[in-house]
Amino acid sequence: MTATPAYDALATTWTRLHRLGHLQSIAGWDQSANMPPKGNEARAAAMAEMAALLHGIVTDPALAARLQAAEAEPLDEPRRANLREMRRRWRAANVLPTDLVERQQMATARCEHAWRTQREANDWAGLVPKLKEVVALAREEAALLSDTLGVSRYEALMDRYEPGLTTAQVDRVFGELRQWLPGLIRKVVERQSRETVLVPQGPFARDAQRRLCEETMRLLGFDFDAGRLDVSTHPFCGGVPEDVRLTTRFRDDEFLGSLMGTVHETGHARYEQNLPREWLGQPLAEARSMAIHESQSLSFEMQLGCHPGFVAGMAPRIAAAFGEQPAFAPANLQKLLTRVKPGFIRVDADEVSYPAHVILRYEIERPLVEGEIEVEDIPALWDAKMAELLGVDTRGNFKDGPMQDVHWPLGLIGYFPCYSLGAMYAAQWFAAMRRGMPDLDARIAAGELAPVFDWLRDNIWTQASRWSTDELARRASGEVLNPAHFRAHLEARYLG
Amino acid sequence: MTATPAYDALATTWTRLHRLGHLQSIAGWDQSANMPPKGNEARAAAMAEMAALLHGIVTDPALAARLQAAEAEPLDEPRRANLREMRRRWRAANVLPTDLVERQQMATARCEHAWRTQREANDWAGLVPKLKEVVALAREEAALLSDTLGVSRYEALMDRYEPGLTTAQVDRVFGELRQWLPGLIRKVVERQSRETVLVPQGPFARDAQRRLCEETMRLLGFDFDAGRLDVSTHPFCGGVPEDVRLTTRFRDDEFLGSLMGTVHETGHARYEQNLPREWLGQPLAEARSMAIHESQSLSFEMQLGCHPGFVAGMAPRIAAAFGEQPAFAPANLQKLLTRVKPGFIRVDADEVSYPAHVILRYEIERPLVEGEIEVEDIPALWDAKMAELLGVDTRGNFKDGPMQDVHWPLGLIGYFPCYSLGAMYAAQWFAAMRRGMPDLDARIAAGELAPVFDWLRDNIWTQASRWSTDELARRASGEVLNPAHFRAHLEARYLG
Repeated sequence: MTATPAYDALATTWTRLHRLGHLQSIAGWDQSANMPPKGNEARAAAMAEMAALLHGIVTDPALAARLQAAEAEPLDEPRRANLREMRRRWRAANVLPTDLVERQQMATARCEHAWRTQREANDWAGLVPKLKEVVALAREEAALLSDTLGVSRYEALMDRYEPGLTTAQVDRVFGELRQWLPGLIRKVVERQSRETVLVPQGPFARDAQRRLCEETMRLLGFDFDAGRLDVSTHPFCGGVPEDVRLTTRFRDDEFLGSLMGTVHETGHARYEQNLPREWLGQPLAEARSMAIHESQSLSFEMQLGCHPGFVAGMAPRIAAAFGEQPAFAPANLQKLLTRVKPGFIRVDADEVSYPAHVILRYEIERPLVEGEIEVEDIPALWDAKMAELLGVDTRGNFKDGPMQDVHWPLGLIGYFPCYSLGAMYAAQWFAAMRRGMPDLDARIAAGELAPVFDWLRDNIWTQASRWSTDELARRASGEVLNPAHFRAHLEARYLG
Repeated sequence: MTATPAYDALATTWTRLHRLGHLQSIAGWDQSANMPPKGNEARAAAMAEMAALLHGIVTDPALAARLQAAEAEPLDEPRRANLREMRRRWRAANVLPTDLVERQQMATARCEHAWRTQREANDWAGLVPKLKEVVALAREEAALLSDTLGVSRYEALMDRYEPGLTTAQVDRVFGELRQWLPGLIRKVVERQSRETVLVPQGPFARDAQRRLCEETMRLLGFDFDAGRLDVSTHPFCGGVPEDVRLTTRFRDDEFLGSLMGTVHETGHARYEQNLPREWLGQPLAEARSMAIHESQSLSFEMQLGCHPGFVAGMAPRIAAAFGEQPAFAPANLQKLLTRVKPGFIRVDADEVSYPAHVILRYEIERPLVEGEIEVEDIPALWDAKMAELLGVDTRGNFKDGPMQDVHWPLGLIGYFPCYSLGAMYAAQWFAAMRRGMPDLDARIAAGELAPVFDWLRDNIWTQASRWSTDELARRASGEVLNPAHFRAHLEARYLG
């Protein structure tokens, strides 16, 4: 009856993975949002059992022949794209020997555990041996992946998060940024030093904060019939496309962090909620990549959320939530949201200095993986680059320096570039929108957000993994990643 | 090295079932407590996939030989008990042909779906054909189980919930109850007709209700580091022993229902939280049976929760939660909690008339499964037994008569007796406690609840599935189920 038996069998396997993965995702969300401390051990065992089960399904020896047979079957374009994505996932799961995966799990667990206390103690020397272990295993993994994919070792690691991304592309983009970013940061800081900004006066009732976050999520099109907002220590967007679980955290003395964090996660959430329903369960229906995912959260947080027209619309809502304050005037809120202040910490960085943190990490982790430098060389490089890019002195401050992120202890090497590529893609999407809708800014100022969502839905969300990232960008905006849009965005917003 | 390779392999299998079942339990709780409506379809598919997976593990053909080999291995007493429980679960999963299970799933889903609207419409005639289908399949299942277990058909169905329970035992116990219960109900109603009871005046803030419930759970020893309280439409005790998830529901105009429901579920919860940790994951560490589980919730709700000494201790807490009211006087609260009023609905029934509802259902579903009566015969029997046992007229009122419970549409036949056996066991446990601690009531009145919890922990909770129900009862209280304790309890509380 069917002309594509191998493909169909693979599709059934992936539906099964999707269904079992659903329980894993919900339990993962629960772990962060609900689980009491004594549930931890049993949950960890359950999650590990499920991870092993899913790994067993993707490494079933029968899949190799089935993938090969499916290549020869008469598949239409989306099915062929789906098969390409299946093979990507299959390769990722099958190329690494089990003992390497296990050694990595142990080394990263040990390193992350040590990092938690050593970071507090500023104990870089203590972390070095454990981090060297993690890096050695990352190099081992990179070498294996690099042979299979025919790319460089660092590219092989980036490929796990951003398929097909090359160091040539990152070098081109970051190289360009490097030319004008430090100067731009200095200029903006100088200019803002003459401004007065009022700080909102707390406390801000958590109930009111929660209501404001939910109201804002509704405004941004989040579907509460297909998702929730809860609280967790580290905000994230989890769950499954059919039931997206956002989290945020509240402080009594400050509300903008939670509000803008929620706006950020809502961008991730709308991507997930609008992946193509008819393909859900298949790799084709998954989000394209981490840089594209980040381009959605940053489209919401930076392009839209810090847009003067949007901020003006939020001002009365904020006043309604907490009572009138001079600090809630639209112009003052806008200043609060676009304050540029070079600092030590990446996650606290503003939109303008953020890429400097990422460029620095890229320029360290790439040679580290390629074997050109060693873990011991990191602090000196860190200090030099922080001085050069952001003009801050980090010498001896490991805690707020190379020990600040959990990524390296966890072996998440090759991920950092995605953050800034996402910011650049977001600027590129909005530039493309403006070309098609010259009155876009006026419409946003009028509270008309549908044009933004429609564009993102048509060009990004529903396209999921159908195209490569470059092809997706070309179809959406007429060109591959072009950092000129990001530069134009920053100059217009901060020097305009 | 090991002398019990078959047993050890089985134990590994059951640990795996426990771990994967953990995710199923948490997702099941989430479904009731959190899930937004559009998540339903994907969740149902995920749950079905997991159920199929777990079923596949227990029906792995290798298990039969392994169980047989393990019988011949040198096992100590708890391991032998564990093996017995493994075999029970294996038999339950393997004795039914897949096509029967599938036909049952379809028939009960259809019947339950129809029941939801037909119940509202009082449409018994409309339900009959679908209920006949469900009963026909239950008879088919009962016949297969009965052949395997060597017991009667109805016993085979009860065995799924209360292993080893015989109709001789139920007949003996319910037959005895039948002698004195209707007279007792009449006497209590007559006596209470002369009493004045004050009804608490609402509204009762939900936040205050939640805090009172949590405070009461703490008082009852619930470990909030190993569990939570949330809200769902139908309260239940879910989650896993390591992380117990209770739910309740709140009404603005009434708080006692939610409070006592929480006390009830806390009884279930403490059983789960105190199952033997060192055996968790093995069948031996699971709760003994549904009647024993119900004996814990009713020990908490009825024996302890409605104990005058406990109620007196609750009175100031209730007043602190909602403000002083004359209705919160201990004696009045006690009257509210022990009000006897024969009615149509089982779930709304008081402690005294509740068993009448169960006896009636037992006397209908037993002959129904044995083929002695048909679905069409139910209403006439129902009306006659309601008149005889409770003195109420249910003619023509199917909605509040045989259509009130979801059990039969779902094929849950053989479960009802557990509710009343649980109430009787609870009375028997407290009678045994009083024999060992003649000052028990004084200690409860002094707010000293530890002796109750210690007794239940030592005699019930930590014993889990180590013994048969009869042996558990004998070890705990010196005798198998003896309804005299329940009678004495009711007479002391309601006629004393």
